[in-house]
Amino acid sequence: MVNFNYLNSTRIIFGKDTHKQIGEILKEYNKVLIVYGGGSIKKIGLYDDVINSITAEGIEYTEIAGVKSNPSIALVREGTKTCKTDKVDCILAVGGGSVIDTAKAIALGSCYEGDVWDFFAEWIEPENVLPVYCILTVPAAGSESSAGTVISNEETKEKILYGSEKIMPKVSIVNPELFYSVPEKQLAAGACDMMSHAMERYFTSEKHVELTDGFCEAGLKTIMRNILRIMAKKDDYDAWCDMTLAGNMVHNGVCGVGRISDWSCHMIEHEISALYDVIHGEGLAVLTPAWMKYVYKNNLNIFAQFAVNVMHSNIEIKDIEELALDGINKLENFFAKLGLPKTLGDIGIHDRCQYEEIAKRATHYNDMPDYRLGSLQKLSWNDVVEILKLAEK
Amino acid sequence: MVNFNYLNSTRIIFGKDTHKQIGEILKEYNKVLIVYGGGSIKKIGLYDDVINSITAEGIEYTEIAGVKSNPSIALVREGTKTCKTDKVDCILAVGGGSVIDTAKAIALGSCYEGDVWDFFAEWIEPENVLPVYCILTVPAAGSESSAGTVISNEETKEKILYGSEKIMPKVSIVNPELFYSVPEKQLAAGACDMMSHAMERYFTSEKHVELTDGFCEAGLKTIMRNILRIMAKKDDYDAWCDMTLAGNMVHNGVCGVGRISDWSCHMIEHEISALYDVIHGEGLAVLTPAWMKYVYKNNLNIFAQFAVNVMHSNIEIKDIEELALDGINKLENFFAKLGLPKTLGDIGIHDRCQYEEIAKRATHYNDMPDYRLGSLQKLSWNDVVEILKLAEK
Repeated sequence: MVNFNYLNSTRIIFGKDTHKQIGEILKEYNKVLIVYGGGSIKKIGLYDDVINSITAEGIEYTEIAGVKSNPSIALVREGTKTCKTDKVDCILAVGGGSVIDTAKAIALGSCYEGDVWDFFAEWIEPENVLPVYCILTVPAAGSESSAGTVISNEETKEKILYGSEKIMPKVSIVNPELFYSVPEKQLAAGACDMMSHAMERYFTSEKHVELTDGFCEAGLKTIMRNILRIMAKKDDYDAWCDMTLAGNMVHNGVCGVGRISDWSCHMIEHEISALYDVIHGEGLAVLTPAWMKYVYKNNLNIFAQFAVNVMHSNIEIKDIEELALDGINKLENFFAKLGLPKTLGDIGIHDRCQYEEIAKRATHYNDMPDYRLGSLQKLSWNDVVEILKLAEK
Repeated sequence: MVNFNYLNSTRIIFGKDTHKQIGEILKEYNKVLIVYGGGSIKKIGLYDDVINSITAEGIEYTEIAGVKSNPSIALVREGTKTCKTDKVDCILAVGGGSVIDTAKAIALGSCYEGDVWDFFAEWIEPENVLPVYCILTVPAAGSESSAGTVISNEETKEKILYGSEKIMPKVSIVNPELFYSVPEKQLAAGACDMMSHAMERYFTSEKHVELTDGFCEAGLKTIMRNILRIMAKKDDYDAWCDMTLAGNMVHNGVCGVGRISDWSCHMIEHEISALYDVIHGEGLAVLTPAWMKYVYKNNLNIFAQFAVNVMHSNIEIKDIEELALDGINKLENFFAKLGLPKTLGDIGIHDRCQYEEIAKRATHYNDMPDYRLGSLQKLSWNDVVEILKLAEK
């Protein structure tokens, strides 16, 4: 097991009606910036509940709305300006991963003199940040208890992850009753993103860590079983609880301790969605099996274990390579069952010329000391191009 | 799934040589109280490493040594006095559960005007506490990242659990290389305590929580497999890592979220060790199978699942009750394999007259509002006596 340093400082308040506690939770603050997306939080009555709860505590508020998927630095800059001019002292994200990531980025920029994009471009550590609170409305990205934020820059066509413990939300409220109206397309993509958070940790290049092998497997099985229950019945509270809890735990850090994770699929996908504005989970559905087929020989054991313990491959298959491939095949079938795209063509990428650009960007940091794309297999420019070719069919 | 509110604010620093970071970690403080047990930390060189590391940072220190199992309020009071008179500003526990629990209790008492036993007798919430740091030397109690402390009062023959998020350690250092000299007897008892932390959460009275069912099962299997590896080879670093990580995770809260835990065995055992100074893990080894035999019919499903998923019972057994009992039987056999005591007689309790006193104490709080011993089955005085009778053979 590799040495590790682990802390997750986010308080999770989970369950029915919990979002109504938000005023009580924020009562030490004077002015909150509420960050959200479109009108869906108004449609389901959540917006009114939030406003009523915080105004009942005498807390003032201002708003930034219109966060979209692949959230933009332009809106972050706007939020940062609002916080500075309006003397905001905390930020409340009401939404899914894009909204929470926007709130975290605003938290960084609001206590910083320079341009907030500096954090993403140069990975500088903030001296101070505004505290971030969340009410989750789409479980998928795990951003409600992670230290990360991923922001896109339309001008430079970049999509960059930034991480600091300081931007972990103080409190995240998770009420699965708020998820019933998540659109079908987003459901499947969200489940794939959650699964990817478990898989990118699971396929370690290190010796197995027995405990977190088991945690990742429990997470994957829980997500897979419950996304099907939810697709069959959108208001299945217990199924939402199980999937949401799994989605949270596979990305709050506990499933990764002692392992050497491999975030290749996420990193390549970020470059794809920076260039094509693809839905993150859909990009992952296309890339993950292709990546697996390219790298599985580096750790046949863990791929065979995945096949047996997660994908229920027949343990009578005696050839370990056959077993590993059976697991990958079953994963592709599962993604198909969810209605997820299978090929790059399915997500609108038809031009092979673009592979080189994607590969160039994904391997950009390979020149930096202590960094290389991939750990199960370190990936070169050429490797990424080959993986993209495997993702054509 | 039941609503929950979860936070674990302890940073875990895990792995080889990590204890040498302690000076760096504590450098913001002026004077630390070091709490430890007997001479074992001196024998393995740990004491010197700690002193060297903290004095290199110019931190002053004072000490409280001599913590024993079932740690006493008398030593806590002594530590509290030292902190007040010596202007100590943080506490460092170097030891196992008893040492950490003592440090937490001292942290409570040092910022309190009255007698520190008040916290245990009256469960008052502290205004302030001194910050607690740990270097773990015996993985078992999970106290290195829990909010609880269990202290014994020799005068009143009480052993009481107190809990507050404020006494969660700030940082716990876990270096499995420090565990190689844990005595065999303590190894088995420690493994049983860890397993109990998973089982008391697992046997929920609520509907299953799929994710944390899986987490508890992964924890139990990891502990069971690796305690055997450790008994065969005391310096098996990877086995220690796996077991220690599991022992930590089954008691840091993640395995219990959304469930209604049932702490009957722990609560009854506390009364037994208050009266008989029994080793906690040995008391649990005697009580747990007896408790299971008494209550399993309240949730046959979870006991059958335990049998199949943890104890590898034959899934061809079609009768669910038979399956549940097979799992309990296999657990008893496993405890026997570890050399743990099986009966109350084995831990020195021969007098049936004492059962009534144990039962009276264990059910003492049943008179209070919102409390009842047990949740899978609420236990009366008579139930506890019957469980103790089952623990005779």
